[in-house]
Amino acid sequence: MLNFRYISPTQFVFGRNAEASLVEESPKLGKVILLHYGSGSIVKSGLYDRVKKHLAKTSAKIVELGGVKPNPSLELVKKGINLCRSSGVTGVLAVGGGSVIDSAKAIAIGVPYSGDVWDFFTEKATVAEALPIGVILTLPAAGSEGSSSAVVTDVLNKSKFDCEHDLMRPIFSLMNPELTYTLSPFQTACGITDMLSHVMERYFTHTEDVNLSDRLCEAVMRSIIDTSPKVLANPTDYAGRAELMWASTIAHIDLVGLGRVGDWASHRIEHELSAQYDVAHGAGLATVFPAWMKYVLKENLAKAVQFALRVWNVNYVTNKDEEIALEGIRRHKAFYDSIGMPTNLKALGVKDNRYAAMAEKALRSGALGEVKKLDKKDVVGIYTLAEA
Amino acid sequence: MLNFRYISPTQFVFGRNAEASLVEESPKLGKVILLHYGSGSIVKSGLYDRVKKHLAKTSAKIVELGGVKPNPSLELVKKGINLCRSSGVTGVLAVGGGSVIDSAKAIAIGVPYSGDVWDFFTEKATVAEALPIGVILTLPAAGSEGSSSAVVTDVLNKSKFDCEHDLMRPIFSLMNPELTYTLSPFQTACGITDMLSHVMERYFTHTEDVNLSDRLCEAVMRSIIDTSPKVLANPTDYAGRAELMWASTIAHIDLVGLGRVGDWASHRIEHELSAQYDVAHGAGLATVFPAWMKYVLKENLAKAVQFALRVWNVNYVTNKDEEIALEGIRRHKAFYDSIGMPTNLKALGVKDNRYAAMAEKALRSGALGEVKKLDKKDVVGIYTLAEA
Repeated sequence: MLNFRYISPTQFVFGRNAEASLVEESPKLGKVILLHYGSGSIVKSGLYDRVKKHLAKTSAKIVELGGVKPNPSLELVKKGINLCRSSGVTGVLAVGGGSVIDSAKAIAIGVPYSGDVWDFFTEKATVAEALPIGVILTLPAAGSEGSSSAVVTDVLNKSKFDCEHDLMRPIFSLMNPELTYTLSPFQTACGITDMLSHVMERYFTHTEDVNLSDRLCEAVMRSIIDTSPKVLANPTDYAGRAELMWASTIAHIDLVGLGRVGDWASHRIEHELSAQYDVAHGAGLATVFPAWMKYVLKENLAKAVQFALRVWNVNYVTNKDEEIALEGIRRHKAFYDSIGMPTNLKALGVKDNRYAAMAEKALRSGALGEVKKLDKKDVVGIYTLAEA
Repeated sequence: MLNFRYISPTQFVFGRNAEASLVEESPKLGKVILLHYGSGSIVKSGLYDRVKKHLAKTSAKIVELGGVKPNPSLELVKKGINLCRSSGVTGVLAVGGGSVIDSAKAIAIGVPYSGDVWDFFTEKATVAEALPIGVILTLPAAGSEGSSSAVVTDVLNKSKFDCEHDLMRPIFSLMNPELTYTLSPFQTACGITDMLSHVMERYFTHTEDVNLSDRLCEAVMRSIIDTSPKVLANPTDYAGRAELMWASTIAHIDLVGLGRVGDWASHRIEHELSAQYDVAHGAGLATVFPAWMKYVLKENLAKAVQFALRVWNVNYVTNKDEEIALEGIRRHKAFYDSIGMPTNLKALGVKDNRYAAMAEKALRSGALGEVKKLDKKDVVGIYTLAEA
């Protein structure tokens, strides 16, 4: 186990009607709150009206900015920063899923910064200050409701970059599983794939003596795998929706990855797919992750065997490690297929080959990954494997 | 899963030389710090000198109070409160294990309170304010380094009571596994039993639809069980000491018990043993918990079967639920025996029968437990079962 520092100061309020806690929690955002949201589905569902009603019970002034799209854009983030400055905004309330929360986080770090907010994403600057961020979660997937990171896309330059700092952890997150009843099977499955991937990025590592965090990772993965078919069969299954919602947080709150180095190559490789083709992040991961697992199989065969045995209950047979590991990957891919995810690039909607250019962009900060340091040939190899 | 609120704002610094982070963390305790510790083992180990050296690099004024004993006393807590008030103490630094931290927590809530600090433990008052608490952990067991609770003993009245509030969570905890190398096998095993019990108190419940937290509980228990014999065989095994130290935190930071009702009868039943006979809390738990499990077996047989199958790898056989559950308890008790814990009251050093009086005290706030509501006859029955 490696040395680590860890803090997760978010006040979580979880359960039916959790959004009503806005009345007591929102003063943490100060006197002028930016209400940030997406496409208007929260208006349709009635959540928007409820949020406004709860906020009306407080003395806060509300400024609004909707229109966040999946793969949230730098353009809207900059618009938000300007709006916050001109309105004297003191805190940001994100009502939505990971895209809305990530957009809110980017705005929150951009407002007190004198330079270009994109500097944080291109590693030209480090976050030193941020407006407080509150969350009402409507889509369990990205884990942004508890995490310290955000991903933003510069649409013009087709660049999807991430940024991380403890100041970006929400000060509160209100999580009502009932708000996720109306998610489509596709949205639900994308979320499932995303949260599983957050665990897997931490699970596959060469760091030794990590039995506790390995077992925590396996616990979260098995819970997600057990619960997913129930939720897809019955979208208003409260128990299942609750399990998935809390799993999304646990998967990305860093707790299952403490004291170990994560890999994160698959995320970077997927980000290029999202940036180029505007595909859903979860769907992209369903194609990339199994390909990556196969590509790096021999680099950490022991961990791949453990994954097959403990997560997928593959039978152990002596001297068959590679077969066992491959069977684990096969079952994992079959799971994605069973929840309606694409498991190859064609099914994802990628019909041309921009692999070399995408690999170059993914490698902008040097080699990717921990299990195997990936160069351009490797990344192209993984995109190619993802065709099958 | 039940609704819940959760916050864990502690800054954890984990790993070799973690105590050196005192220089950057201690300003969170303000200008006048109470350095609180135990019997002087930290002086012998050299930790005391290192702590003083680190603190000397800051501008804080230091006030000292040593002498905390296992089952920390209300008397010393009151002495600490008076000392803090007369010296204008702004924060408390606990250097030690659970007893020192619990004593520090009681002082921290007592200083700003105008009444008797014991009011918080007898449920006559609720915590509304506390001095900030910092921790340097030397004994992984109680989980107090991350938890929101403390247990204090009124020695005169043989009363060992607990108190809980989020304001009692430490503001930072510095955790260096190397500081635990010198723990005796008995201290180590008591710690192992205590941390396992914190998970088990949460695990055994009638709350339904808790698959994720069940699996998190099982992950922590299996990690502790895997690691314990390695550490007892080799006390300077860094990896093993690190696993146990972080497991002690995870076991009691509430995370594995969110959205479910815990039982906590075994803890209350053990507290009376500690209060009457001044036995080590962990050793007491090793006698009480298996007796409780047997006593309530039929109240939640399904969960006892799950425990046997998933934690102890008992073979599943149809229509043999009770045998499976009993085999799980037998293996669990054999584990305590294998790490040198007493598994009956005689071995614990209890040579007379004060069961009726102890049961009455344990039941002071009404029936105990969630799996089965225990009355006086039940508690006496559990003490009696613990004789075997």
